[in-house]
Formats: sequence, C-alpha cells, structure tokens
Amino acid sequence: MKANKTEPRTLPGFMELLPQDQILFNQIKDTIRKSYEKFGFLPLDTPIIEDSNVLLAKAGGETEKQIYRFTKGENDLSLRFDLTVPLAKYVAKNYENLSFPFRRYQIGKVYRGERAQRGRYREFYQCDIDIIGDGELSIINDAELTSVIYNTFSELDFGKFTICINNRKILNGFFDSLGQQEMAAEILRIIDKIEKIGKEKVISEFEELGIAKNNIDSIISFIEIDGTTDEKIEKLEKLNISNEIFIKGIEELKEIIKYIRFFNIPEDYFKIDLTIARGLDYYTGTVYETFLDEYKTLGSICSGGRYENLAEYYTDKKLPGVGISIGLTRLFYQLNEIKLIEAKKKSIADVLIISMTDKFDYVSKVARDLRKQGKNVQIYFENKKVKAQFKYADKLQIPYTIVIGDDEVNSKTYTLKNMETGDQQQININ
Amino acid sequence: MKANKTEPRTLPGFMELLPQDQILFNQIKDTIRKSYEKFGFLPLDTPIIEDSNVLLAKAGGETEKQIYRFTKGENDLSLRFDLTVPLAKYVAKNYENLSFPFRRYQIGKVYRGERAQRGRYREFYQCDIDIIGDGELSIINDAELTSVIYNTFSELDFGKFTICINNRKILNGFFDSLGQQEMAAEILRIIDKIEKIGKEKVISEFEELGIAKNNIDSIISFIEIDGTTDEKIEKLEKLNISNEIFIKGIEELKEIIKYIRFFNIPEDYFKIDLTIARGLDYYTGTVYETFLDEYKTLGSICSGGRYENLAEYYTDKKLPGVGISIGLTRLFYQLNEIKLIEAKKKSIADVLIISMTDKFDYVSKVARDLRKQGKNVQIYFENKKVKAQFKYADKLQIPYTIVIGDDEVNSKTYTLKNMETGDQQQININ
Repeated sequence: MKANKTEPRTLPGFMELLPQDQILFNQIKDTIRKSYEKFGFLPLDTPIIEDSNVLLAKAGGETEKQIYRFTKGENDLSLRFDLTVPLAKYVAKNYENLSFPFRRYQIGKVYRGERAQRGRYREFYQCDIDIIGDGELSIINDAELTSVIYNTFSELDFGKFTICINNRKILNGFFDSLGQQEMAAEILRIIDKIEKIGKEKVISEFEELGIAKNNIDSIISFIEIDGTTDEKIEKLEKLNISNEIFIKGIEELKEIIKYIRFFNIPEDYFKIDLTIARGLDYYTGTVYETFLDEYKTLGSICSGGRYENLAEYYTDKKLPGVGISIGLTRLFYQLNEIKLIEAKKKSIADVLIISMTDKFDYVSKVARDLRKQGKNVQIYFENKKVKAQFKYADKLQIPYTIVIGDDEVNSKTYTLKNMETGDQQQININ
Repeated sequence: MKANKTEPRTLPGFMELLPQDQILFNQIKDTIRKSYEKFGFLPLDTPIIEDSNVLLAKAGGETEKQIYRFTKGENDLSLRFDLTVPLAKYVAKNYENLSFPFRRYQIGKVYRGERAQRGRYREFYQCDIDIIGDGELSIINDAELTSVIYNTFSELDFGKFTICINNRKILNGFFDSLGQQEMAAEILRIIDKIEKIGKEKVISEFEELGIAKNNIDSIISFIEIDGTTDEKIEKLEKLNISNEIFIKGIEELKEIIKYIRFFNIPEDYFKIDLTIARGLDYYTGTVYETFLDEYKTLGSICSGGRYENLAEYYTDKKLPGVGISIGLTRLFYQLNEIKLIEAKKKSIADVLIISMTDKFDYVSKVARDLRKQGKNVQIYFENKKVKAQFKYADKLQIPYTIVIGDDEVNSKTYTLKNMETGDQQQININ
C-alpha cells in the first residue's frame, strides 16, 4: 500500500462479514423475524440515536459507562444500548395510539463500548419481542413466549435446546423467608457459579459472606431440588414456606407450566431451574434462559422475563410486560466458530447465465422468464473466457449455470448445468 | 405527567412510525430487497460506526459539517453518512476474498446532521446496489441497473415512472468544447433550475456569470435537444463536436440504450435527459435519475451512476463501478403524505383467535395448525369481553377472527369471521 492511502480497516468489536457469511447471517435473522411474525408480533424500528436524557432516564452504573454518548450542536445524544428502553419510550409516547396488549418485535443494532475481546461486540443485533399490557397482562403470555422460543429455535435448527424457567417471586420470597433479602444478589451471583466451582466452594463462599449455617443448608437444599417438573413443584410446596411472595411465585410457576403443556411444548424442551435469576433488577416474575444441550458453555442463547412496569420513568400508566431477547451477533459468532451452522442456500443467485452469443435479447429473455418464476438470476456480462465464468459461479457457490450460445438461440433452448454434480441438460424455453 | 417523569420524546429528524405505518414501510423495504436479490446482488451489512480517519479519507465540505463525529476513549469515531464509502473500504479491505464483478446490495441507516425540516431526516435508510469491477467493468452493467430500477419500481407500484439517463462524458466534453470546463458546475446548477425559473431567467443568469453570447446559444440549443431517444442521439451527433470525451460519451450512451432495449424496458419508461448531472463529482459516465410521472416535484426517487474508481483513497487497485440508491425514509414520508401508498397486508396477524373456553389445548392446537399452514396467528389471552376482543382485531386491522367456544371444541370446529364483510362460517378442523 502506498503511503498516501488510508488503511481500509474496520473497528475492533464491530462485525463485518464476507458475503458467504452475510448470507448465512441474514437467513438466521429472517428465520427469527418470520417466527416472531407467526405469532402476530408487530414490527418496530426506533432510532439508533436518542436524546441522552430520555435514554438514560433509568440507566446507571455499568450501562452508563459503556454508552456511546456525545454532543452534536447543543444536543446531548446517545446510541441505544438495548431495545427495551426505546420500547418503553415508544409505548409511553404513543400510548393513545396503540392497542393493548401491544405485541412488538424489534430486530436492530445496539451499542455498548465494552472492552474488546474475542466474541464480544460493541455493535450487535438484538432480536426482541415484548408483550405490553395496559394495567394488567395475563400470565398466559409468559407461557406463550416459551412457545415462541420453542418455535424459533426449532426453525433455526441449531440442535436440541432446553428452555429453563424460574420465577423471581420464588427466589425473592425464599430469600425473604430466610431474612436474606439484602444478600439476595450476592447469593445468586455465587449460586450462578455452582456448575463451574462446585458445591463445596459455593458453601465456603456463603460462609465468607457471613451467612448462617442453617441458612446455607436451606439454600443448598433449595437449589438442589430435583426431579421432573412436577416433582420440583411438589418439593417446592413441601418446603412449607409461608412467605406470601414465595407462595405467589409457586402459583405463577404452576400456571405457566400448565399453559406450556397446553402449548404442546415437548416435556424435554423445558425445565424448571431454580438457580436462574437474570441480572437485570426489573424482572419480577417469570424468567427464562435457553441453552443448547450440546453447547451449554455458550451460555443462554435466548433470555428474558416478566416485569411489573415497563415505562415508569416516562409515564404514570402501569404497563406490565414480558419479553425475550436473542443476542444474534454474538450467537452467530459462536455458532460459526464451532461450525454448527450452514446456509440452506449458499448464494443469492440461483443461477448464473453465461452468454456466448450476440443475441442478447434472447439471453435477457431467459433471465426475465426465470425471474418471473421466482428465481434469482445473474447474467455474467464481462468479456472473460467461459472457464473463468464457471469459476466465478463456483466461487460464489451458485448452484446452477445456464450456457447460451448461438445454437441455443436458434433452437430456443439453453443448457442448464448443475454445478455440484456436473449434470447438464438442454431445456426448451417454452 | 408528573414532574419526576422524563418526557418520552423522539429527536426531531428521526423517523419513528406507528405499527400500521411500520408494516407498510417494511413491505416497501422488503420489496426493494427482493428485487435486488432477483438480480443476484449479495447482501452486505457494514458497521454504522467507523474510524473517522477511514470514513473521512475522502470527504470534505458539506459532508464533513453534517457528520456525527465523536470520541469514545481514545477513538475518533463517525457515523456513516452514506453506504458508498463503507463499500469502498470493504472492497479495498476484502479485495482478495471477493469475486469480481462484485455485486452487492445494502439497505441500512445513514446519518447526516442536516438542518431539521419537514421531510428531511437525520437518520434515514438508503437502499443501494453497486457493481464493482476489478480493473474494468462492462458497460452492459450500466444498462442492467436501469433494468433493476424498472423491475423495482414496477414491483413497488407507485405509478408510472421515467428513468432519465445521461452521460457525464457528454456534459464534460460539451463544456470542454466551449472552453467552459471551469464553469461547468455553475452552468449545470443553473440548468437544473430551468423547469422552475424558465428559459429567459436561465439565460440572464448565464449572462451574469459572464458567459459569452455564442456559448449561451450553444448551451441552450444543447439542452433543448428533443425528440425520441433515437432523435436525441442523432441531434447530438449532428452537433459535430470533435471533442474526444464528448464523442466517447455519445458512444457509451448509444451502447446503453441498445442494451436497455435488449433488457426489454418499455420505451416510455426511460429517456435521455441531457440536463442531468448528479451533484457528486465522482460520476464519470452514465448517470440516472428516476421520477414519478405524476409527482415530478418529489424529485428523483432513485439516482446513481458510473464511477471510474471506487476506492482510490484506500487502494491502488482500479475498481470501476456503477450504482444506484433509493433514499427510502424520505421517499416513504413523501408518498405517505400524498397517500400514494397503502399496505398490501395491513396487519402482521392474518387471524386473531378469540377463545371462550377452558379447553385451551384445543385453542392452541387450532393456532398451531394454522401457523403450520403459513398463517400468522395471534391468540387473545386477556380476560376481556368478546366485544372488546373484536374491537381489538378491528383496530389492528386483522382481516379474520376465529371464535372458539365449548360448542366448537365439542364439534371440533371453529367459527371464522371475515372482519371486513362480517361473513361467518363454521370450519371443521380436519
């Protein structure tokens, strides 16, 4: 490169794919969108830039540090860091013009200036759905989202997955009953590590935290509750904890499980996992995480939950909701790394037309007719040898080529070649 | 609103649609994408944030003033202001991994901090296609883009349109032959106003510019060249201007017209317009603008052209290209204002299921079966009166409702209601 050229680089933490990978990425994104639409969710597309006062009405701590915030003229602006805050703003702003329950999906890029590291992105797609009620929202919606997750990941076909379900009221009520509300966040953080560090280490961390022996025992037996879904619920009830929130949590969980079965989700695709809490403090009921059975180390690939009040920073209206989110950019990176995904259609063009005739009106007619039949057709226009044109089709993984020479023009045919098998056949254009 | 609430506002110059409009917007966006893919263009999705040094390698003047530029940590960052510069960077960066001609489309948001005014957006979608050659690129591509425009706007169905074609070499050569190269930009700016201010005013502006009488006469007779496409070319040739660039321009234009006819574009959908230049100084050959015949005042709805060298700021490789762009956000705003567009499908859900039974497994099965048949189905879960549920379907413009009560469960049927006609029929689920 000459000294007077600028190096054409892309910022670290920003995904930019080669065409083959982009095709695959888009297929996944389209599948998610289609699945969301199957359940009647409405599309939404909010600005990437918002007024900082609006976007950060609620934020604080880690989020605020990561945010892309800047001024333009006199405006204090920020790039959205998730799709939930823009949704809250949108619903509060357009309350009078929306019909509730308001069911929307949004698939868009969000921005977080995280420390750059492998597989972590500063610009990434979130694929969200949320159902917002006006004042109240039936718990059946919580079960339906499980059904949306099931349908979406069945369509995506990444292999067997399990939707893990918990209810924050059970956790909150349980810690409440131990007099450990204050410690709940710390305790959950430690519980979250149990698979990694083992039970003994968890216990010793609880001890370091100053938790009483009998409480540690209770916590351990709580998180060790096992068995089938119904057995878990039974064991929870048998704890005989008289805490109201705890009891409400169990009721909700039972109700959700009942409806999940009505939704016909196979029993081995969902389970109760009492250790799931989700970091965000606004979840107040159902919480979800989803794991690929064969690749649990990837972490949850679809998470979410129920919240009491979506937009309290913007409006007095009580707007309970439930939602889920897929962090598509990171997920794509991970699945591509372990080669778990492959495009169903590796090229955009279904066929490349290679022309060896001056009768371009004929060539153009063949292309037009095929497009009318729904095919994506590229014509090769450059003056290259036929061999180079076949190589081009090969590199782009276009599955078929059509060769048109004067013979084909005269006989009103074309030669169709299957690029994978090499099979050729003469097709009459009528 | 209480004092402690933040007003949920959206920044001026940023489009944020209600669901009904968003559905329509997405249908248009999808139609454009589908049309681009029909011609085998590959998808591309570049970051919205780029290193300022990379993004602004070429920019200057008005663009630089409008740009959203800021620092994050030690990085000098900018939001992309078009999709062409990111394409140039991408092609230069990935040259070794791309197959040429490289045909890509990109549909994405770009950012320009323009003065806010009605119908002007600071965040807007561009829908671009470009064909990039390695060293050279056949002129047939220029004709094909006309074909893409024709196909796209036929599908979009906004009414009769005309693709106006010119060639910068004809303009450059013509002004060159008059010894007016220096004045070319000014002259074109004045010519551009002729429809608005009239011929006499144009002549007086030329005089003010100090252009000699005989040159003014030549310019006027040049832009007044009329007739059919072939007559215009004939008249251009009869000017007998011996300037090489001018002659090359006519040759190219003739070639493009020949191929446009091969592509079977109806004669009344394209025309030569010698007054079209396109502001951007990098166009070096064919230029396009597209107008709705009935709404010329909207300005060009799809523009572009041929450029000699896409990525000279990043690489020594010569990469000629040709491209077009649709500024979708502004176009949508304009067409929606004049009520020229209407959604083909006004809701995402094809049907809303209204359940009046406890047999939820049956309700859920009906939904699942319909989804399998390709329908988008929403179930209404809230505990509301049936009338309210019908009203909900009505407001969302969902075309069908299905009512399921105990009778329907027992007879394995459901009642399908056409919401527009009010017609009802009993359907057996088998």
